[in-house]
Amino acid sequence: MQVEFWYEFASTYSYPAAMRVEAAAKEAGVTLCWRPFLLAPIFGAQGWNDSPFNIYPAKGKYMWRDMARICEAAGLQLKEPVRFPQNGLKAARLALLGQDEDWGAAFTRRVYLANFAEQKDISDEAVLADILGSLGLDAQALLARSGEQANKDRLRAQTEEAIARGVFGAPSFLVGDELFWGNDRLEAALEWARR
Amino acid sequence: MQVEFWYEFASTYSYPAAMRVEAAAKEAGVTLCWRPFLLAPIFGAQGWNDSPFNIYPAKGKYMWRDMARICEAAGLQLKEPVRFPQNGLKAARLALLGQDEDWGAAFTRRVYLANFAEQKDISDEAVLADILGSLGLDAQALLARSGEQANKDRLRAQTEEAIARGVFGAPSFLVGDELFWGNDRLEAALEWARR
Repeated sequence: MQVEFWYEFASTYSYPAAMRVEAAAKEAGVTLCWRPFLLAPIFGAQGWNDSPFNIYPAKGKYMWRDMARICEAAGLQLKEPVRFPQNGLKAARLALLGQDEDWGAAFTRRVYLANFAEQKDISDEAVLADILGSLGLDAQALLARSGEQANKDRLRAQTEEAIARGVFGAPSFLVGDELFWGNDRLEAALEWARR
Repeated sequence: MQVEFWYEFASTYSYPAAMRVEAAAKEAGVTLCWRPFLLAPIFGAQGWNDSPFNIYPAKGKYMWRDMARICEAAGLQLKEPVRFPQNGLKAARLALLGQDEDWGAAFTRRVYLANFAEQKDISDEAVLADILGSLGLDAQALLARSGEQANKDRLRAQTEEAIARGVFGAPSFLVGDELFWGNDRLEAALEWARR
């Protein structure tokens, strides 16, 4: 079976997950689908207009320390983002296009690095254009396509699908109806997919 | 270094943690301290008057499924509790006495089994007395001592200590100032303690 990796660019724990999910799935012999979505509508429905890591300071303080340990163990850079959470809407619309065109994985990893390792503003179209260009892609054409109504609607529908399938946070992994939440559940999701 | 295991009897993920923490610490050669505390004052300060797993239904649904997978993998029974969350106040006051008297670990495990495997009401003094009796202890004397003002105050102080040291959920592990949250962080906490 395949595993679906559901991620949001503002999500801290999605960063180490995004950096290792492809290699881990390959090693497990499991097909991987990249599924960008938005957390804001999900959090908004719970009455949160900010990250729960900002709303609940003790949880937020712990998360940054936990992320530092995880990134250090994984050999990943971690620097305080230019703001938290960042607005990942435009990046998610681009990743949605890339999902069908085989550059989505590489684009996704570069956006996470820009957010959590390079202190770049990932809501800035110039930053996203640089990333697309570095992958040998036509940045302006992709930015234009990503902003078309059909693509906006598709990202909205993908987020609705996430909610309908029980997703409430990121990263999440789905193996059919079986939901796994959190970077630390990747191995369990892959094991489930191999059954 | 030692690892402190901070737990609340109403907490679902504290159940598998409580059942495995002693053996895991022993294998790692790390001294273990049992630290019962109460989540209600912590949740109350965040504006929650119920478990977040009840307040946020998608998260609650996932948690029960995740617990079922974890307990199955660990060979632990899991049955829907008589209510969720249960009131673990009296059990925590007893566990606090046991923490000094070497029956705390066994008592703690039996209370978790009563809550999550045996569908018993752990706020019922008769249930707690049965558990104490099964450990060869003088149940009535311990119940009386556990309800004395000094012991009530001590549990309150222990909860205040948890908050002061950054604890916001259960189970939590502390190695000095280093905080680890969740059953799935036990191994990381033990590794930290061995450094």
